[in-house]
Amino acid sequence: MIELIFLGTSGGMPTKNRAHSAIALRYGGEILLFECGENTQRQLMYTTYSPMKIDKVFISHWHADHFAGLPGLIQSMSLLNRAKDLHIYGPKHTKKFVDMIMKTGHFNCRFDVVAHDITSKKMVCAGKKYSVFALPVSHSVETLAFKFEEMPKQGKFDAVKAKKLGVEGPDFKKLQKGKSVKIGKKKIRPEQVIGPDRPGKTITYSGDTAYSEKLIEFAKKSDLLIHEATYGDEMKLWAKKVKHCTNVQAAELAKKAKVKELILTHISPRYKETKTFLAQAKKKFRNTKVASDFMEVQVK
Amino acid sequence: MIELIFLGTSGGMPTKNRAHSAIALRYGGEILLFECGENTQRQLMYTTYSPMKIDKVFISHWHADHFAGLPGLIQSMSLLNRAKDLHIYGPKHTKKFVDMIMKTGHFNCRFDVVAHDITSKKMVCAGKKYSVFALPVSHSVETLAFKFEEMPKQGKFDAVKAKKLGVEGPDFKKLQKGKSVKIGKKKIRPEQVIGPDRPGKTITYSGDTAYSEKLIEFAKKSDLLIHEATYGDEMKLWAKKVKHCTNVQAAELAKKAKVKELILTHISPRYKETKTFLAQAKKKFRNTKVASDFMEVQVK
Repeated sequence: MIELIFLGTSGGMPTKNRAHSAIALRYGGEILLFECGENTQRQLMYTTYSPMKIDKVFISHWHADHFAGLPGLIQSMSLLNRAKDLHIYGPKHTKKFVDMIMKTGHFNCRFDVVAHDITSKKMVCAGKKYSVFALPVSHSVETLAFKFEEMPKQGKFDAVKAKKLGVEGPDFKKLQKGKSVKIGKKKIRPEQVIGPDRPGKTITYSGDTAYSEKLIEFAKKSDLLIHEATYGDEMKLWAKKVKHCTNVQAAELAKKAKVKELILTHISPRYKETKTFLAQAKKKFRNTKVASDFMEVQVK
Repeated sequence: MIELIFLGTSGGMPTKNRAHSAIALRYGGEILLFECGENTQRQLMYTTYSPMKIDKVFISHWHADHFAGLPGLIQSMSLLNRAKDLHIYGPKHTKKFVDMIMKTGHFNCRFDVVAHDITSKKMVCAGKKYSVFALPVSHSVETLAFKFEEMPKQGKFDAVKAKKLGVEGPDFKKLQKGKSVKIGKKKIRPEQVIGPDRPGKTITYSGDTAYSEKLIEFAKKSDLLIHEATYGDEMKLWAKKVKHCTNVQAAELAKKAKVKELILTHISPRYKETKTFLAQAKKKFRNTKVASDFMEVQVK
């Protein structure tokens, strides 16, 4: 199961109810952090997500509302005696900016912070059972969208058939794990009782971006698309000018990409409540939610 | 009247209840910010203190828990179309570190941020009716304590005596404002009816510091001393090693400096509650409080 928590959902400036951008994704004992807006370290304290399990941070772009939590997070990790490397993936200049963060103030960091400049569409990193891909999108500065892809999972195990074939005891478990077993002189191969691989789950996240056709292909059939929606439909001209998206554009993209679910985030402080905002988007794509701080999502 | 609000009172790392260091002082329509820990801009949103009225920020030293709120605060001020200069006063390297903050990320700041390196005891700035002084103290890196000094106020006006001298109408106001008036051929000088100047209020603030004898003189007879107390008395050896103060040391200093009131802040996350912590300090100096986030203080 993939779990996510929205740690901050505001666009540009925080509000009383929305902190700066940050989303934590928990999978296989690891936490991946998408964006690290100001105060992310403290937002984490109100959740069950430990900062010490974060080894990879993905920064969509270098505007302060997406990265200003990094100095504090790194400093606190160091105070907590972290020793492991911390990887930061972002667009062009990530190395340069991370280097400056580490030189601002008296830091004495006890671990290595490894920055990665991602300048083209590619797989940026992989865990045991997942990969993360990046795609440059269109914003006022170099910006990336990210995709978390769970590896395909083993197909369904047909226990009844296995028993009929005479498999039992420790062999049963062995076969279930995808290894051949011998029953007398007969070899039972896993493909006899295990169905075809089941696709892993896919979550696509786009931080700040203008409506971006490229994202349709990148997000294709994602189980979840998290997309910025800084503005409502009434602001679409302005949104275009400042290279942001509206709720309706994000919903249109979700529809075209045939994703299963859409969550809108990076909401401008101008929207004190989001009833109309959500309704506008739902007209285009029904399975839409508007993120709120500390909203939790499970992708099973 | 001088008003203060504690925006963050934690030491080193934030906790669920305490944000990183920051104290806002409101006086004569202006707000002076002492420290700018992470999330100061959002803490301000829960108060009546507008970030746009901050023209001067005082950073005791360049550890992240004292300055990591600067990038976000500056960014948001810019988004709110600030045009006025913002002055940042701090110890050695302040110019260098502020310069790096302004170069980290794509900033496009619409106003000038003017940094000042303060390397010796001196008056660092003045407003219409106040001055701020700095004193280098002893911490693991270059660190300053600050003192806010209200200018002396005009003495008490003796209205009865003024009337007896025949002063009335517009002349009464004129005399009250400290100007001589003529009653017939007689000149009435303000010193005849206005008592000696009354001293202004003084607030001394010391961020991170080891017990520092120099502070006794600097804080002498302050109306309020705000002093770091990272640790309780049981940690005094450790406190000495890492150049911090204990609650009891701060209280001792308050006593020696003959201040009127002491507020302890920068409390280590290890102290979940502060009943004993406060009691230990009160034994040395009775008029002591432990700061909490959003605690408000008036100095009249």
